[in-house]
Amino acid sequence: MVLRFYFEFASTYSYLSAHLIEALAGPRGISVEWIPFRLGPLLYDQQGMKDSPFNLVPVKGTYMWRDMERLCAAHDLPFERPVAFPQNGGLAARLTTALPLAERGSFVRAVYAANFAQQKDISTVAVLAAAAGRDVDEIAHLLEDPACKATVRGNTDTARSLGIFGSPSFVTPDGELFWGHDRLHQALDWITHQSHRNLQSNPNYEVQP
Amino acid sequence: MVLRFYFEFASTYSYLSAHLIEALAGPRGISVEWIPFRLGPLLYDQQGMKDSPFNLVPVKGTYMWRDMERLCAAHDLPFERPVAFPQNGGLAARLTTALPLAERGSFVRAVYAANFAQQKDISTVAVLAAAAGRDVDEIAHLLEDPACKATVRGNTDTARSLGIFGSPSFVTPDGELFWGHDRLHQALDWITHQSHRNLQSNPNYEVQP
Repeated sequence: MVLRFYFEFASTYSYLSAHLIEALAGPRGISVEWIPFRLGPLLYDQQGMKDSPFNLVPVKGTYMWRDMERLCAAHDLPFERPVAFPQNGGLAARLTTALPLAERGSFVRAVYAANFAQQKDISTVAVLAAAAGRDVDEIAHLLEDPACKATVRGNTDTARSLGIFGSPSFVTPDGELFWGHDRLHQALDWITHQSHRNLQSNPNYEVQP
Repeated sequence: MVLRFYFEFASTYSYLSAHLIEALAGPRGISVEWIPFRLGPLLYDQQGMKDSPFNLVPVKGTYMWRDMERLCAAHDLPFERPVAFPQNGGLAARLTTALPLAERGSFVRAVYAANFAQQKDISTVAVLAAAAGRDVDEIAHLLEDPACKATVRGNTDTARSLGIFGSPSFVTPDGELFWGHDRLHQALDWITHQSHRNLQSNPNYEVQP
């Protein structure tokens, strides 16, 4: 069974999910499909936002940074509020799709750590190469493939069609959508315990091909 | 020890917190202070919203109703998507402050159930009287006290000064703010385990008098 993990590299709470999802899913026999998408276009189309809601609504931003500090402390994850927020995660998203499947998890985790614990600029090839454990030239070559960009664009379109509006989002094999790091356990429970047996199937979230 | 529970009667997720908070807090020796406030003025002042975000952003509304359906099923709480949303919880908020402390919890739970499980109009004295287990005349008399309205207004002002922007919100004795039903456990843990010992005190959330 596979849990589809939709994530935007600029998203704070997705840092937590990226670091915990495989450790939580693995013991249940659930594998993770890493699906980078761009949240910016959805925020603009759905809510008219041209910046992170945490910048546009300062009271929410203040809360979120404190919440992140608490959550990372609880999970023993390093955290340092980035000076630059939100960062442009476009290149990192493309590169994720260009890497072999087996390398994606560790790459994604390294990029999130660069963003939210190390004050690094994740829009640079140098930082991405270090996160991938590869040479800069190799990374530049991988990014030349136009398929990377098309894949991320396709992921974003699929996210939109699934009703996704934030990151992290999780989609179960039967098309159920869960939003937010605090729903990760419920998404896994949904698969494991089939806890939806008491509920009618959800007409809003059709399984996408 | 007391956990301050700020709630708006129109708020869907607060229905879950209202029904679970005493059962979760009691065994830890934590009591609950029921603090009704008006979220509408905060949504307008902080985000320019004149309606529920779940109406203004349909993709969020679609998700929220499904999420509520799942969560209520998981907690064996009756749930029926209300035809009218959001309802005006102003009168219910005022009445909460007029009732004896010992009656507030059961009253609040009954009003939330009327709203989210019974399609009742919680802006009417008849529904509120039934929720309070009192006569309509008695309720009307209690609501005549201008102190009720002033208290709710004061609660709303305090909520604003605490950095509250949504419901449910929980504030610990040391002034730490937690937002959302999915943070209820963390708010209780914060009090019980003093899990903030590893964190610096939070300059953003001063303890209010």
